[in-house]
Amino acid sequence: MVVPTVYGSDGRHLYFHGSVASRSLVASPGAAVCVTVTHVDGLVLARSVFEHGVNYRSAMVYGVPRLVTDPEEKLAGLRRLTEQATPGQWDYARQPNRKELAATALLALSLEEASVKIRTGAPDDGDGPDAALGIWAGVLPLKPTWGAPEADPLLPAGIAPPPHITARGGA
Amino acid sequence: MVVPTVYGSDGRHLYFHGSVASRSLVASPGAAVCVTVTHVDGLVLARSVFEHGVNYRSAMVYGVPRLVTDPEEKLAGLRRLTEQATPGQWDYARQPNRKELAATALLALSLEEASVKIRTGAPDDGDGPDAALGIWAGVLPLKPTWGAPEADPLLPAGIAPPPHITARGGA
Repeated sequence: MVVPTVYGSDGRHLYFHGSVASRSLVASPGAAVCVTVTHVDGLVLARSVFEHGVNYRSAMVYGVPRLVTDPEEKLAGLRRLTEQATPGQWDYARQPNRKELAATALLALSLEEASVKIRTGAPDDGDGPDAALGIWAGVLPLKPTWGAPEADPLLPAGIAPPPHITARGGA
Repeated sequence: MVVPTVYGSDGRHLYFHGSVASRSLVASPGAAVCVTVTHVDGLVLARSVFEHGVNYRSAMVYGVPRLVTDPEEKLAGLRRLTEQATPGQWDYARQPNRKELAATALLALSLEEASVKIRTGAPDDGDGPDAALGIWAGVLPLKPTWGAPEADPLLPAGIAPPPHITARGGA
């Protein structure tokens, strides 16, 4: 089973979270997991279909996640998770109260056992026989782009998005 | 173990591929897999940290992949895979020869057992007590954007990128 999720990191652990009622996250204490993060940077367009590929950066982290029970570590982990997705948001939004913290399970996974794979650069068939075919080859870059912030329709007039959001948004 | 990969589909199967020498793809005949595709559409910025989330479309496909041995299905599957990533590229680039086909393993996974999860729209705390806090709430959209094609440095002068690439590129 694979579950998409957000994460934060303090450089030594990955933190990820879910509802305490979530079967997938919390109900399997002691179970090994593999957490993967992949950034796709572009399509590698070669002369031959065979040499086509993707430029990417990918990490796999293996281990048995630990349920975080220490209140300070839990708050710090949730802060990292929020700030990784949206820097500036933890101090701007209302922070979790006791009831919300109790409803949230936070898991920590050590970064000790991890592997990283990266591919960059041009196709590999530029100096082979296919180079004579006259086929264009190169990379079509891909990157995630933030759009302009879209206000909640229920938001009262006069509440502007904060600078840490507008600075990021595309328009 | 989680392996990032490209895929194609004919509406009834997912196709994915790898080297015949790849341990992860081919050396476990009969093993069940879970293939996941996730599109992140935006960050859901609520009044409370607790209600923060992500707008996304996610699919999980479960099953035991089948090694494709029929030559026609194999060629058609590889074509779908190439065309899903880069429409127009299969007929433009040099197609696989017999040796390359023999070195490529193609797997087919039925779409019969699959589940889809989607979240769209505004945060969920617009009509709760936190709405009175005066905190901006809404969605910060995220979308993948193609950049301008980057020619292979080994490409001879005078070979322009084809229309199906330039039409997609960002500049």
